[in-house]
Amino acid sequence: MTGSAASQAGAGSPRARLAAVGLGRWARVMARAYAASDVAELTACYTRNPERRAAFAAEFGCDQADSLEALLARDDVDGIVITAPNDQHAPIIEAAAAAGTHVYTEKPIAVSLADLRRISRAVTGSGIVFACGHSARRLSGLREMKRQISDGETGSVSMVEAVFGNDRGLELKEGDWRADPVASPGGPLTQLGIHQIDNLQYLLGPARRVVAMGQAPRPGIVNQLAVGALLEFDSCLGYLGCNWLSPGSFTIDVYGTAARLRYELDFTWWSKSAQTDAHTRLARTVIAADSADPDARVLAEDAVPLPPGDHLREEIEEFARAIQGTAEVEVGLADAVSNVAVLQAAARSLAGAGAVAVADIMAEIAH
Amino acid sequence: MTGSAASQAGAGSPRARLAAVGLGRWARVMARAYAASDVAELTACYTRNPERRAAFAAEFGCDQADSLEALLARDDVDGIVITAPNDQHAPIIEAAAAAGTHVYTEKPIAVSLADLRRISRAVTGSGIVFACGHSARRLSGLREMKRQISDGETGSVSMVEAVFGNDRGLELKEGDWRADPVASPGGPLTQLGIHQIDNLQYLLGPARRVVAMGQAPRPGIVNQLAVGALLEFDSCLGYLGCNWLSPGSFTIDVYGTAARLRYELDFTWWSKSAQTDAHTRLARTVIAADSADPDARVLAEDAVPLPPGDHLREEIEEFARAIQGTAEVEVGLADAVSNVAVLQAAARSLAGAGAVAVADIMAEIAH
Repeated sequence: MTGSAASQAGAGSPRARLAAVGLGRWARVMARAYAASDVAELTACYTRNPERRAAFAAEFGCDQADSLEALLARDDVDGIVITAPNDQHAPIIEAAAAAGTHVYTEKPIAVSLADLRRISRAVTGSGIVFACGHSARRLSGLREMKRQISDGETGSVSMVEAVFGNDRGLELKEGDWRADPVASPGGPLTQLGIHQIDNLQYLLGPARRVVAMGQAPRPGIVNQLAVGALLEFDSCLGYLGCNWLSPGSFTIDVYGTAARLRYELDFTWWSKSAQTDAHTRLARTVIAADSADPDARVLAEDAVPLPPGDHLREEIEEFARAIQGTAEVEVGLADAVSNVAVLQAAARSLAGAGAVAVADIMAEIAH
Repeated sequence: MTGSAASQAGAGSPRARLAAVGLGRWARVMARAYAASDVAELTACYTRNPERRAAFAAEFGCDQADSLEALLARDDVDGIVITAPNDQHAPIIEAAAAAGTHVYTEKPIAVSLADLRRISRAVTGSGIVFACGHSARRLSGLREMKRQISDGETGSVSMVEAVFGNDRGLELKEGDWRADPVASPGGPLTQLGIHQIDNLQYLLGPARRVVAMGQAPRPGIVNQLAVGALLEFDSCLGYLGCNWLSPGSFTIDVYGTAARLRYELDFTWWSKSAQTDAHTRLARTVIAADSADPDARVLAEDAVPLPPGDHLREEIEEFARAIQGTAEVEVGLADAVSNVAVLQAAARSLAGAGAVAVADIMAEIAH
């Protein structure tokens, strides 16, 4: 997109016109998520590899560009959806912001503090709509947990435990970027934990301090494949557990004075965003019969109804509406940067630094 | 019991004759647990308060002694079951060991390092049978998790998360010993967490390093009421979550390369030991349909059958059989001390010490 003011971008179009940049597995998941959308359409795509590009264009019936510059110069591209590797986000976002093209990027926004600085400078003041893909907070159970906490239905919350794991570390090979502690600090912490970092900060506000421990059990793989982190929030503790060494899991436990909540997501359905909510469960446990004798108190657990949604489609459609000026982006630059600051605080702790203040990381990003 | 060699104590009796020392709520739970036992019987009791003593003796149909010395001198007391406050364990155990009377004590064996030293010196070489009440590892689900880990059915385990909480901190008052960080380091960590510390070390071997964070949210209560700790084991990470601020919970999650296990205990039934197992659930999740495409892998969860047991009765009966020379105590001095060393490592970390090596605490206990 060239020449048009960001605030009016796509305003004349019934659907915001999006282009996919980086055409791996997750690009397909994203493209399928908004294939039937009334507010967003996929018009073009780009990745360096011509065969992969052609295959993607054929699969989704969109055009292709043979360079990022060519893609950004097209008249039918209002915004790009980046699913390129994390360390390529910064230059792509810089180019898009310079061209006045709106940006949605997969999480994490970036990994290195230097890239965070570049992205912050490129986006700030550019006028483009900027969204980062932290869609997990849009899962129906997360929205309901947030509502119960905000409405006081849980009472005061003292502890939230969030876990995300899968088996991908078992097939990891030496030299894979996921095996590199710089490219993927804490291994699953960068790829999976970042979702729960956003969820924890969504539920509890900004984390202040982080301490972490990790395990690197696979010979030849120097990166941690299982990580535990403790997070200090304003008036609550958080635990974050991530692993790449076990069948998939995604759970959140909330410990409140009035109720305890447990959310479970069947990982089988993680990347099928239209069906994910239907394979989740939120249980609420309360003291149903109280007594002066603690041994006579009786607990009761109920399943909380969760309306079905589509976390990825909702996120992309919000991005499209924001391009058209009819919505605001929920997770923009500030939240995305803050999530990586927590990630990097955990990574620094993993490297032996003890408890690390998130504010110290934020100060380094700002300078 | 006076004058008899420890190894022959109670050998002539069909049932080991036990006396209750400290007659609060848990003394009743314990006495009920072995009321119908063929190998142990309650013959006497002692606590300082005469009314409480008389009431207990009447309730359970046993004799009473008006001093600890008188109790230990009785011919019909082979062993004592201590449920007195933690800081009274050491002098009671010293007196019992000197009298040649066998000792079962509720967990934790003691809290202060000085008391651990006193107890270690008193018990070591005394010839008495010594057992510490870490009965939770005898829950049917714990035995099954241990078996699956030992038999390799879970594959390699990279992470175990153990949580124990209840609502007792909501009724806590200033001046209560539970509100005192010296008497009850980390609050629920000392009273609830110690169970899971034993469970984690039972499942994974000795913990090496601990780091902890806590929350003390109640005005006037200086002690932490919610605590999270990360534990480093030989080839695994552990997480321990404890709180006194939410409806009861007791869960253990095991993340193995071949399977993920989740154990849940309905806290309503915690102190009804004959029924506890019937209100627990162990779920095992595996990859039921594998695929080269990670998004096509399908998980399946099954409930693992758990035979019913009675963790408290089994523990007391083992103590009774050990007195009679026909069994060995599973959790003796070494394990009980090691559990408190982990607790104190966590407490030291809570006090701002960063990650603490358990070996440092053990060295201090030894000197």
